[in-house]
Amino acid sequence: MALEQSLAQLSLATVSSPENEKALPTKSLIFKPKTAKTATPVPIFVLALHDTTTPANIIAKSAGVKEPRLAKDDLVEEFFKTSTKEVSIANLSKDLEGKIKIVLDDNILKAAEKEELLKLSTQSSAAVLPAKTVVEFLKSTGIEIIEVDFSAEPATTAAPASASASANKKEKKTDAKLEDAKLIGITVDKEKDFSTWYTQVVTKGEMLDYYDVSGCYILRPNSYFVWETIQDWFNVQIKKLGVQNTYFPMFVSQRVLEKEKDHIEGFAPEVAWVTRAGNSELDEHIAIRPTSETVMYPYYAKWIRSHRDLPLKLNQWNSVVRWEFKHPQPFLRTREFLWQEGHTAHLTQEAAAEEVLQILDYYAGVYEELLAVPVVKGKKTENEKFAGGDYTTTVEGFISATGRGIQGGTSHHLGTNFSKMFNISVENPDGSDQPIFAYQNSWGLSTRVIGVMIMTHSDNKGLVLPPRIAQYQAVVIPVGLTSKSTDAERKQVNEGAEKIEQSLRSAGVRVTGDYREIYNPGWKFADWELKGVPLRFEFGPKDLAANQVTVVRRNDGKKFNVKLDELETEIPKLLDEMHDAMYNKAKKEFDEHRVLVEDWKDFVPTLNAKNVILAPWCGDADCEDDIKDSSAKKDDGEDEEVDEKAPSMGAKSLCIPFQQPELKEGQKCVKCDKKAVNYCMFGRSY
Amino acid sequence: MALEQSLAQLSLATVSSPENEKALPTKSLIFKPKTAKTATPVPIFVLALHDTTTPANIIAKSAGVKEPRLAKDDLVEEFFKTSTKEVSIANLSKDLEGKIKIVLDDNILKAAEKEELLKLSTQSSAAVLPAKTVVEFLKSTGIEIIEVDFSAEPATTAAPASASASANKKEKKTDAKLEDAKLIGITVDKEKDFSTWYTQVVTKGEMLDYYDVSGCYILRPNSYFVWETIQDWFNVQIKKLGVQNTYFPMFVSQRVLEKEKDHIEGFAPEVAWVTRAGNSELDEHIAIRPTSETVMYPYYAKWIRSHRDLPLKLNQWNSVVRWEFKHPQPFLRTREFLWQEGHTAHLTQEAAAEEVLQILDYYAGVYEELLAVPVVKGKKTENEKFAGGDYTTTVEGFISATGRGIQGGTSHHLGTNFSKMFNISVENPDGSDQPIFAYQNSWGLSTRVIGVMIMTHSDNKGLVLPPRIAQYQAVVIPVGLTSKSTDAERKQVNEGAEKIEQSLRSAGVRVTGDYREIYNPGWKFADWELKGVPLRFEFGPKDLAANQVTVVRRNDGKKFNVKLDELETEIPKLLDEMHDAMYNKAKKEFDEHRVLVEDWKDFVPTLNAKNVILAPWCGDADCEDDIKDSSAKKDDGEDEEVDEKAPSMGAKSLCIPFQQPELKEGQKCVKCDKKAVNYCMFGRSY
Repeated sequence: MALEQSLAQLSLATVSSPENEKALPTKSLIFKPKTAKTATPVPIFVLALHDTTTPANIIAKSAGVKEPRLAKDDLVEEFFKTSTKEVSIANLSKDLEGKIKIVLDDNILKAAEKEELLKLSTQSSAAVLPAKTVVEFLKSTGIEIIEVDFSAEPATTAAPASASASANKKEKKTDAKLEDAKLIGITVDKEKDFSTWYTQVVTKGEMLDYYDVSGCYILRPNSYFVWETIQDWFNVQIKKLGVQNTYFPMFVSQRVLEKEKDHIEGFAPEVAWVTRAGNSELDEHIAIRPTSETVMYPYYAKWIRSHRDLPLKLNQWNSVVRWEFKHPQPFLRTREFLWQEGHTAHLTQEAAAEEVLQILDYYAGVYEELLAVPVVKGKKTENEKFAGGDYTTTVEGFISATGRGIQGGTSHHLGTNFSKMFNISVENPDGSDQPIFAYQNSWGLSTRVIGVMIMTHSDNKGLVLPPRIAQYQAVVIPVGLTSKSTDAERKQVNEGAEKIEQSLRSAGVRVTGDYREIYNPGWKFADWELKGVPLRFEFGPKDLAANQVTVVRRNDGKKFNVKLDELETEIPKLLDEMHDAMYNKAKKEFDEHRVLVEDWKDFVPTLNAKNVILAPWCGDADCEDDIKDSSAKKDDGEDEEVDEKAPSMGAKSLCIPFQQPELKEGQKCVKCDKKAVNYCMFGRSY
Repeated sequence: MALEQSLAQLSLATVSSPENEKALPTKSLIFKPKTAKTATPVPIFVLALHDTTTPANIIAKSAGVKEPRLAKDDLVEEFFKTSTKEVSIANLSKDLEGKIKIVLDDNILKAAEKEELLKLSTQSSAAVLPAKTVVEFLKSTGIEIIEVDFSAEPATTAAPASASASANKKEKKTDAKLEDAKLIGITVDKEKDFSTWYTQVVTKGEMLDYYDVSGCYILRPNSYFVWETIQDWFNVQIKKLGVQNTYFPMFVSQRVLEKEKDHIEGFAPEVAWVTRAGNSELDEHIAIRPTSETVMYPYYAKWIRSHRDLPLKLNQWNSVVRWEFKHPQPFLRTREFLWQEGHTAHLTQEAAAEEVLQILDYYAGVYEELLAVPVVKGKKTENEKFAGGDYTTTVEGFISATGRGIQGGTSHHLGTNFSKMFNISVENPDGSDQPIFAYQNSWGLSTRVIGVMIMTHSDNKGLVLPPRIAQYQAVVIPVGLTSKSTDAERKQVNEGAEKIEQSLRSAGVRVTGDYREIYNPGWKFADWELKGVPLRFEFGPKDLAANQVTVVRRNDGKKFNVKLDELETEIPKLLDEMHDAMYNKAKKEFDEHRVLVEDWKDFVPTLNAKNVILAPWCGDADCEDDIKDSSAKKDDGEDEEVDEKAPSMGAKSLCIPFQQPELKEGQKCVKCDKKAVNYCMFGRSY
């Protein structure tokens, strides 16, 4: 009764009395989780103290939903029959049971225990109620209530950062139980819930953050540094080939974009269009490049007039936009991504073909030399090649945790298809009327490489960064100081740690020191493990006395001492050893999970055991489709959208590896009765 | 009569007879020049031999129009009452006199002299007519006819490239008269027609090419190399300050974009909007960033939780889009441009203010150390500062050929305006409830710097590149070989030239060699002067004998010999000397044209004499507006759009220079009666 009366007050004017002024202000927020277009959303009603921060990622985790966002007016109206600004618990009732969820701030339960008052406000009104009454009312609705201690949970990306005053209090607890460090770390197992694990690793490792526009992500300094390192390395290689960097506009007119039909067919559904500038509608709609073939080639036609203008070799580092509507995934499938795209034109097919393979070697080099990720080089089938080109070569990686293949980078030979379309030609030196059309290549490598690297190496403690691309290769942490330590001891240890930093720096090692006094060493260890820093240097009074430092390798946890005067010689070597160890481990996994299958009966079981497959194949496109269909788990009858990422999906051809097992005399295709022409690598893939 | 009959045939089927097959094929093209939206366009009818290349830039120059483009169907229909594919001279008549212009290929006049036949074709028909008849018919219409020798005119961007077979024939002529080298070079005087000169220099120097989408340009390798050099240099500086590079998405939702009102007001009319992806209209329209304050700051609020998270210093190298509707200009005003934008958050105002000036020094360094361009550092007035910020500091350049100032790069202190809007705050260490809002800066430098550099140094022979940013700092050209030279001499000279390349390369000089046998040395000299390469090495039999090489400096034409064994020591020094000489020359010009004016009566005359002005000023925004209005030439009564770029425009405040002349006791403002508070630099500007 009291409740109903009080709720009725919500429609009345604001409340003011000495008692009411002590009431704790609250907020009511409606979130909409990410939901398939065809499904009915289940909104989340969040009731929290006004001062409680309620990050979306914690709501997501607590309520077991994906990417909750503040709901729009129409959804609020639909479920709560009022506007976003007016919604309150007064709009909750038994009718909503099973249709929404409630997330309840733990502080409100505490307020109920302490018999405190809550102030419930909407834009136009307010009411004051005992917290206990509110909690009872919520329970009476029958709606599922999820109680959340927001202060105990970390915000996604701010592990140590969020730990300000409250972290300070919890420090002792963290110290006592190191397993509690997981609170700021990874909370799920890579092998058991790969998808959540990956999201946690990329965000908590501060590689990336989720962004306000779906499918777009923020590349934070930790990952952008990887990209810069790749740029520097790759630029050196291609400049040796005479490639020059350039920048073409991001916009392309519809007429030009659509010039090459096969090509545009592949991209058309994903092209983002600019139709308005300021308040003016544009006469002609303008596309944002999904790739730059049609952007660049009209100018190649203009610049290439004689065979002396060939070869023309240009490259650009830019971003492209492919507005995919399904399942964005950090680094792997994003609506805007960074890449390089090389576009070259040659007088002869031979010169072009040679370059295609040279570039592919550089792509393999990025993976193997920088990211410590093994790849298999090969050629794409006709089904999988670049639309509009002659053939596509590729480097293919493997994610052992999921048993899936992943395309790493592609180098295409376009033949004369585009040059004929755009008239990129030179006079024929034999004097005939027929011009010679240029032989063209295009080749691209994107920030997806960073995702492949993370998936390959990282573990349940967080990121594991290969040393050559780590922004910080080493962190120095003072240890062994207690409340009993003297100021002199403290000073000696800190100064010693700083000297270690200097030694490493002068040996060319990228190093940082962690002297934050508010955190204890255990917390710091976990924090830097989460961020994947390859080497941890622990330096305390005992190390000082022994003129050494304790070193811990992130990749395998090995711990040992290094004499201080050997740092400059030993550590650079050690970093190279770690690179090799990481590469070899990943290579072993890939090699062991690339299984030769000749009988179809073994195909799907092998696939289901998290392998990719090397199988004799007839080379027929229909047979390839058949393999894909037959290796997919069957529809269970429900009318659901097929998720390309689900483990049930069929095996695609990944590539025809350059390195081929020898075909036996009369070997048949793994799937059909035709004669095999080569071995093809098949797998479920990203 | 014969004419009219023949023209009638154009509507008949194709013609075939032995005589007609000798007829020279022609083409009829309709171009539409760039025209103000309110004006009626004057299309250009181009009649040319089919094999004549008719580049838009030559048509532009010959017909005295801007940016002619192939006309769209509706325009052709409007003027010629037929489609683009069917238009021919049969559609010309007296009615079009004064409404269109005809550009007539010189080769058609020659064909008339030689009494040859022309074949006039449309998509559906063709006719054969004596060339003479065609010319007479054209003259009979009364339409203005512009005769153009396309083969004598250079295509904008393909000076040597276009010169294939025909260039070969003309080679001797080029050699005989070196002044003819100008045919492939700049054809107008920098001082007399700066705008055309600039367009020619940027395109013929292969820095940039015009693009299919208006206001967007292609950065060719020559200019992109400058940008990469700036990136490398600037990255080193900012990394010393602890700035990290990052990449935020190019898209921003309307809600977020519009969060800071003052800020968005400045950008709203120029924002490009994506409203469609593939065939789907987007629920929420998405903007392309015009700058990233509102893109980034919500995440700063998320990441910054405690004072230990400050300072946060991020920078990104990206492109931004400002869809300006007026007067695009290569490098200076483009719809998409590359830049870096730094965004930092600090705990104290002092730390932020110190960084603002530090960054400004780096911007001055880019200009002075790399581009050899002098700048004046100062503070923007309230009228001219960055919308939403506290104050703006700037480096200002000067283009002596036009006497106009040019903004070079700006470093803003935002105060706590954005941090309050986005709640970027940390707890107060004094324990009070009031959070501390972060003090923020943002600072940006764009590819406009390249335009300033070109305008400052280049001359009537083409580009002049400062040595530190030139992709090629030197070119080696074999000389003195004639048809009488023996193979042995030829070999010795070429090998000697290659050795010079090697010496220079080992001294760290970026060098190329020009061994193209189809061009003679004179042509090559002009070509490399056009492209601005700082040093030319001429090496011939006499040099070989004397163990020396002839060196020519691009900046001042000085010519001298260097002993071969002194190259490695002398040339790097020489390049530094040239840098200093270029800087000092430009500095002298700026200093001499920055004139101190105290009386208003001297203000406009001084401005008109191509100076910028340093004047005592009251600091009042209304007075600033008054100065601008009063220094503009008056409207002549015609209802024309005001062109901001015209010399008639008023003087803006450029900056309040940090280096101030001393104010005299009681000094009054140059314009009003109020007391002057400091000296302000005023000028017409870009």
